[in-house]
Amino acid sequence: QLRGKHDERSLVFADLTREEYLQVQQYMLKQKDLDISVNQITKPSKNFLFLIDLSLPRKADALAYLDGKGAKPDREATVVVFHGAQGYIKEYVVGPLPKPAYHRDVTFERYKMNLPITARTVTIGEYHLLFQFLEDEVFSKLKKLMKESFDVSQDKKLNAFEQMPRGVQSGDRKTWVSFFRDMSGMYIHPVGFEVLVNHESVNASDWRVMQLFYNGEYFYTVEELKEKYERGSVKKIVFKELPDYGSLKPKHKALQISPQLFYAEGKRFSVSNNQVLYLDWSFAFGLSSLTGMRVFDVHFKGERIAYELSVQEAMSVYGSLTPGMMLTKFLDSSIGIGRFAHELVRGVDCPHEATYVDTYRYIDVPAPVRFRNSICIFEHNMGQPLRRHFSDFFHNSYGGMVNSALVFRTITAIGNYDYMWDFIFYQSGSVEAKVHATGYISSSYLVKGSLRHGHQVAEGVLGNIHTHFINFKVDLDVLGVKNVFQTKDMEYINMSLPWMPDHYAIIPQLVEKQLKTEQMDYIWALGSLEAALRYDTKTPRYLHIASNKTNRWGHQRSYRLQVFSFTGDHLPENQAEERAMSWARYKVAITKHKDLEQTSSSLYSQNNIWTPAVDFSKYIEDNESIEDEDLIAWVTTGFLHIPHSEDIPNTVTVGNGGGVLLRPHNYFDEDPSIHSPDGVFIGPG
Amino acid sequence: QLRGKHDERSLVFADLTREEYLQVQQYMLKQKDLDISVNQITKPSKNFLFLIDLSLPRKADALAYLDGKGAKPDREATVVVFHGAQGYIKEYVVGPLPKPAYHRDVTFERYKMNLPITARTVTIGEYHLLFQFLEDEVFSKLKKLMKESFDVSQDKKLNAFEQMPRGVQSGDRKTWVSFFRDMSGMYIHPVGFEVLVNHESVNASDWRVMQLFYNGEYFYTVEELKEKYERGSVKKIVFKELPDYGSLKPKHKALQISPQLFYAEGKRFSVSNNQVLYLDWSFAFGLSSLTGMRVFDVHFKGERIAYELSVQEAMSVYGSLTPGMMLTKFLDSSIGIGRFAHELVRGVDCPHEATYVDTYRYIDVPAPVRFRNSICIFEHNMGQPLRRHFSDFFHNSYGGMVNSALVFRTITAIGNYDYMWDFIFYQSGSVEAKVHATGYISSSYLVKGSLRHGHQVAEGVLGNIHTHFINFKVDLDVLGVKNVFQTKDMEYINMSLPWMPDHYAIIPQLVEKQLKTEQMDYIWALGSLEAALRYDTKTPRYLHIASNKTNRWGHQRSYRLQVFSFTGDHLPENQAEERAMSWARYKVAITKHKDLEQTSSSLYSQNNIWTPAVDFSKYIEDNESIEDEDLIAWVTTGFLHIPHSEDIPNTVTVGNGGGVLLRPHNYFDEDPSIHSPDGVFIGPG
Ligand SMILES: [Ca+2]
Ligand SMILES: [Ca+2]
Ligand SMILES: [Ca+2]
Ligand SMILES: [Ca+2]
Ligand SMILES: [Cu+2]
Ligand SMILES: [Cu+2]
Repeated sequence: QLRGKHDERSLVFADLTREEYLQVQQYMLKQKDLDISVNQITKPSKNFLFLIDLSLPRKADALAYLDGKGAKPDREATVVVFHGAQGYIKEYVVGPLPKPAYHRDVTFERYKMNLPITARTVTIGEYHLLFQFLEDEVFSKLKKLMKESFDVSQDKKLNAFEQMPRGVQSGDRKTWVSFFRDMSGMYIHPVGFEVLVNHESVNASDWRVMQLFYNGEYFYTVEELKEKYERGSVKKIVFKELPDYGSLKPKHKALQISPQLFYAEGKRFSVSNNQVLYLDWSFAFGLSSLTGMRVFDVHFKGERIAYELSVQEAMSVYGSLTPGMMLTKFLDSSIGIGRFAHELVRGVDCPHEATYVDTYRYIDVPAPVRFRNSICIFEHNMGQPLRRHFSDFFHNSYGGMVNSALVFRTITAIGNYDYMWDFIFYQSGSVEAKVHATGYISSSYLVKGSLRHGHQVAEGVLGNIHTHFINFKVDLDVLGVKNVFQTKDMEYINMSLPWMPDHYAIIPQLVEKQLKTEQMDYIWALGSLEAALRYDTKTPRYLHIASNKTNRWGHQRSYRLQVFSFTGDHLPENQAEERAMSWARYKVAITKHKDLEQTSSSLYSQNNIWTPAVDFSKYIEDNESIEDEDLIAWVTTGFLHIPHSEDIPNTVTVGNGGGVLLRPHNYFDEDPSIHSPDGVFIGPG
Repeated sequence: QLRGKHDERSLVFADLTREEYLQVQQYMLKQKDLDISVNQITKPSKNFLFLIDLSLPRKADALAYLDGKGAKPDREATVVVFHGAQGYIKEYVVGPLPKPAYHRDVTFERYKMNLPITARTVTIGEYHLLFQFLEDEVFSKLKKLMKESFDVSQDKKLNAFEQMPRGVQSGDRKTWVSFFRDMSGMYIHPVGFEVLVNHESVNASDWRVMQLFYNGEYFYTVEELKEKYERGSVKKIVFKELPDYGSLKPKHKALQISPQLFYAEGKRFSVSNNQVLYLDWSFAFGLSSLTGMRVFDVHFKGERIAYELSVQEAMSVYGSLTPGMMLTKFLDSSIGIGRFAHELVRGVDCPHEATYVDTYRYIDVPAPVRFRNSICIFEHNMGQPLRRHFSDFFHNSYGGMVNSALVFRTITAIGNYDYMWDFIFYQSGSVEAKVHATGYISSSYLVKGSLRHGHQVAEGVLGNIHTHFINFKVDLDVLGVKNVFQTKDMEYINMSLPWMPDHYAIIPQLVEKQLKTEQMDYIWALGSLEAALRYDTKTPRYLHIASNKTNRWGHQRSYRLQVFSFTGDHLPENQAEERAMSWARYKVAITKHKDLEQTSSSLYSQNNIWTPAVDFSKYIEDNESIEDEDLIAWVTTGFLHIPHSEDIPNTVTVGNGGGVLLRPHNYFDEDPSIHSPDGVFIGPG
């Protein structure tokens, strides 16, 4: 049933192989002047090879190669080194693989700034020191309190969960570390103890406890807390056993298994290397350790629909009275979204019969790691017809077709939350990018006044209000890279009825606009359209990436972006942290493609949130023309999360998600699913 | 695996049986003074028994009975008689079944007005006369034109499709009838010929052709058109064969069938009479000929969650230059939504293994009709986990559960469109009501200027811009009928950081409101909240029906309504037709329950749209208290439809829908799915 053949050119987008990671690692280790370590517990004061990931080819080069008009681009890797010895971070491009011969510092080219060492992600090496520091400087000095309040002993510890950003200004690396019971789902077992550690220095010997938070009160030193605790002048937390409400262990045994999917006549899709073929679809795929899942060179019926469709960022802003979570703004790609794409469980995360693919990654490790079955691909019966019509007027007939579509999935468990990422390929020529959240909420210890920031969800536990904002990059190429951005909507107009001209009626009409530049400061027919697609303004209902080429009926061929979103309010722009998440201002932002504007966020955004390496708003600040250009749509979706008791133990996926559907609109001359072999027709008689 | 037992009390909501329809019919025929006919081609000037349908019991009576505190309510039928002889419409309640002994005129009680005969739905009897009228007064007089322009001959006719409303003021019954090729999917084969017929009188002999529309020009009489056509002073349409682009016949044969669902260990749900049991769920169901699918007495884990969840209305407003469609505003429940719930096709409309249920209806027929397999019920693997968490920090474990849910479905093919209606019951305690549109778009003949109202989708065919507004009735009863309506949202506040009081930050906080009366004229913290839930104002993000009873953590137990909607603009309120669709002003409107406010629309709205029998806005005009009352939520969803070439031959369901998800929010003390036997846990090692 496959319409096409696999093509090795897809490998241009393939993640690095285990061998390639090792080639790059060895090459870097040979650069003696760089003095790099790959030891996993390298100290922050040394130079640590943090990340190796595919460096994507320039789009023009890749397209030339894919379209048979150019040579295969050199295969290159991006290498991130935390130069603790020098106090900065560098990004290098290393190539060509498989025999690296050069490395090039691309930091300034990519970010137009130097990256201070304080902008780095906390490594396992730094955690190692941090936990030791907390043990030495806090726990060992508060044994009595720890025992009485939290039942901490030689064999029983608390678990730490850090809040981010780490401070209030550039250079800060002052982290509130919150403590949780060492139970399943620790994230919903906060104990009411938090410690502010200054770990700005790459030398752990300079680190200091700055403040402590215990049962709603602040203390400047461990000694102050200890002294007041022993004197009895603080309100004590008295340890109490709690039920294991975070447990995910089933409480009942299945008597009958749930409905299962099966491929009675085999799979109708094929996966070879990093390429998937499915009926009329083909695409290449990869998984970036930082940004996560992505597909490239998406073809439908022989035409390229999209060059790239990728996850960019997952961001959350929390509200709380407790100190750590009060400032919390998570930017997951700075920790690594794809990094946490772990093994998918057959029959739960994906159907039993899905095809599972292994991935290899190199991030904060001494050697590349294989992640077994971390991508799944399956065709699914979506449980409804894709289209159908029953006619009982004049003609008695039925025509229809089941909605059977291909799902490409990863699930990334980034600490407490699990994000499920789906790209879905429909037989009607649509592609959908979806995200759903599940896993544990992030919670805080209930103190007086806490309820202004959420609901109590367990004994002494507040489920904190927070936003989920997710950014996708959608690089549609509609019949080539030269496209325009159009909006369509309705407007009521007052018309006289031609057959009784004295009578007027209000009639819907179609309003179409073509936007000229990235800032889109136009007057929309229905009101002012300052950057129309901001979340806080009225957005036209239909958004299109269109070609100037027309379909059979003279209409511009286009793909429409339909955004499904339940976002909360975006952080006000006067906040210093906002620039690192400025993509979230826009439901859809359109930019002119640039190879140097590869992502809307960066690895360095979380820990230098005040001076981010990537400030998305700058992509549109130059207000370039978006007419007949290669356009990128940056789509923001998400939802406001007001946690409630049913978030215990886990948030459910139903209703907790968002996405964008890319749909052909005057692209074809008719619905392409009419050519699907899944069509069914029942005639009269 | 079933948790409960079937209970015959559900029958209180059951549709009338074939025998009951006949009992009512016979009873009515015995009332000689009413002089009723049941002949299907009864003339409009006679009295015609149009409809027999279940008359729902008063809610208080039904609840008393269901809860074992009252007798079984009398079983009664609603009977609609079109009294052509008297010039009015009457609604009667007939009871008690099975041996009817009384009938009661409830017209005024229900509608506070008399119903003029012009408000009636066009019956098969009237169509019979109308088609004959058109044949005699139009087609037979225009043979040459008909042959040359449309290839009409003895054996080859055009098909008619009427536009509604039928005129511009109360009493009007002046219908533009548009003609279409007699081909599959006639709705997308308009020929450019429309006739305005005045059929106000119940006597067909009074009917007149008022105007004609041919190839963009208007004519007052058939003779004028004929004369000008023959004289050559009109621009002629010359018949041309067209490809059968409306055909739904597959063009390819399947080589491999698509993925199938199977119940390896049998069905986990049971259907008996009109009751469904599924894991922790139970509900009664029915199908009104007018409003369509509905469920009652929805229980989850032994508690009643909702008394009623039902389809109310499907409305569309069209834009066009051609006369019929220019005014078109369809109100489908006036024709009958449930009426068109035809047989579902196994393997396309629902999975092969679904349970299919027959329904019986009596509407515009001489005897009750059985609709085989017109409801389907199945459990579906939704293709994703309901929840899951993988932990690799501190604890290595996995817990998850597939999202397997019960779907209750009908599909109603109302002329051109097929609406797919789904109620979905999730193991997390959520219920979802969803609608998707498929089938043929309604189209018009392309004339100069047409493109202001849509896109060309085939040769000479305009796909007209239109809205889809769908209304659901959601009668949640959260721990009894006394509930309140709450909203929750976020708001940013400026707070000083307790550990560094000189520093301020903007932090999300939770804002909760309890609305007091139906009109909800409150000031919302984020701005003016005039009837907050109007589509054109900022609506709080979380909407709740709540009890004053609290969960374990002291929060009011509630169900949240999450609306999925892509509606266009609602018709302005200054339009005379708007009052018949005033429910569409509100995304969610909350009213105090009244037995006499059973539906948001009525059978008489379409044909007396200017003086509708039900004007929903009156339900809230009295602005009653909604605190500690039995609350009904009326939810409007839908989408703006700008047709495009891919709507040919059929609109696809993907992206063309809307719905409302009812989710527990602090209702339980934890996620109820934790007790599902479908849970999976994988421990370390
Ligand atoms: Ca730019
Ligand atoms: Ca592009
Ligand atoms: Ca009222
Ligand atoms: Ca209620
Ligand atoms: Cu959340
Ligand atoms: Cu439509």
